[in-house]
Amino acid sequence: MAYSNAYAPSAPELPESYVHQQHDGENRYRYAYQPTQQFSSSSGLFSPETHPEIVKSFESADRDWSGFLEESELRQALLCSGYQGISNRTIRFLMFIYKSPGDSLLRLGPKEYVELWNCLAQWRAIFDSYDRDRNGKMNSTELRDAFYHLGYMLPTSVLQLIQTQFDDGTGKTVELCFDSFLECGMIVKGLTEKFKENDPGYTGYATIPYDVFMLMVIPFIASYD
Amino acid sequence: MAYSNAYAPSAPELPESYVHQQHDGENRYRYAYQPTQQFSSSSGLFSPETHPEIVKSFESADRDWSGFLEESELRQALLCSGYQGISNRTIRFLMFIYKSPGDSLLRLGPKEYVELWNCLAQWRAIFDSYDRDRNGKMNSTELRDAFYHLGYMLPTSVLQLIQTQFDDGTGKTVELCFDSFLECGMIVKGLTEKFKENDPGYTGYATIPYDVFMLMVIPFIASYD
Repeated sequence: MAYSNAYAPSAPELPESYVHQQHDGENRYRYAYQPTQQFSSSSGLFSPETHPEIVKSFESADRDWSGFLEESELRQALLCSGYQGISNRTIRFLMFIYKSPGDSLLRLGPKEYVELWNCLAQWRAIFDSYDRDRNGKMNSTELRDAFYHLGYMLPTSVLQLIQTQFDDGTGKTVELCFDSFLECGMIVKGLTEKFKENDPGYTGYATIPYDVFMLMVIPFIASYD
Repeated sequence: MAYSNAYAPSAPELPESYVHQQHDGENRYRYAYQPTQQFSSSSGLFSPETHPEIVKSFESADRDWSGFLEESELRQALLCSGYQGISNRTIRFLMFIYKSPGDSLLRLGPKEYVELWNCLAQWRAIFDSYDRDRNGKMNSTELRDAFYHLGYMLPTSVLQLIQTQFDDGTGKTVELCFDSFLECGMIVKGLTEKFKENDPGYTGYATIPYDVFMLMVIPFIASYD
């Protein structure tokens, strides 16, 4: 079975240069990296075209001047960049998803930090645009539409399951705040990308060895809070 | 590739009637269900041979007399049965792994509760027997040996990853308390069983459709704490 539109994990995502247009007052979400720009070590850790806010937030948070942000440093960087309320659990997801695949350590270099920054800007913009009633929460219909915009047309069963995971055990209808939206979005994005690595032909099926399966899934089951 | 001993998710587990022999004082862990016994609705929810402590703990916790334990009821039942300190996250794992597959609701009936009780007794006994220095914590070697005893000879890479998930972000050597042992054990048990459902020939490879993959993995990524 090839991916039908009903699954579409291979659907194109928004361009990385997606810039939030609707909330001009929220400048912190507007610094989109232009993917055609190249990093150059001769001009420092970041390319000269990188928005100074991104460079500033990275350098302020990189307290040991290692050239990388570790988990606690990323937490600080996001806090100072206007992303309050992101849980430690979500921070670890972000580290895991955005770290360089070739780096055995859980840390972000400048290139990965720019990518993460742009992702957060994009996801914040989408959250705001789909939170139609402006209550800072996203209901199930808004969540479905937001995922679609991000390139993931999830089966209803998967959407329902995600929402169950974020309920409080009482069975009430769930509305997600930005942090929860980010967390469940990262779960969908991360798992889908891992799946696709094992389905290079985009057939909709992945054949996975046991140890690879365990190694690809367990990082999403972070216990640390 | 067939499962080598290095993976062994299909290795036999201990019998359900495994009874902890080493700590006679801890009677609460010794009530092992005999799998040859049958439940009979004519003799009540439990078979007559079920240990009265199990029946008592179920009935005391089933406050709405529904004949099932919901999440909050299970939490209460375990607390009253001597299992202090089990996190809400682990409770949800237990519910998910032990609920009847045919039940769309997250709840445990008497049969599932007996199975869970026996599993906890077995795992507590193994934790105690491998916690050789009696400090209530399990180090990485003890964890490896305990998993082996439970029938899971995990690749070193998987073991290391599990321990990373339970560290506090400082990179220090991790020692697991019983709750953490139970949590990571349930992750290993649950994921391995889900994998095996998609690898009926025990080849070491599972071919999994995208939606099935998402549905089998997301429940382990419970956000609720």
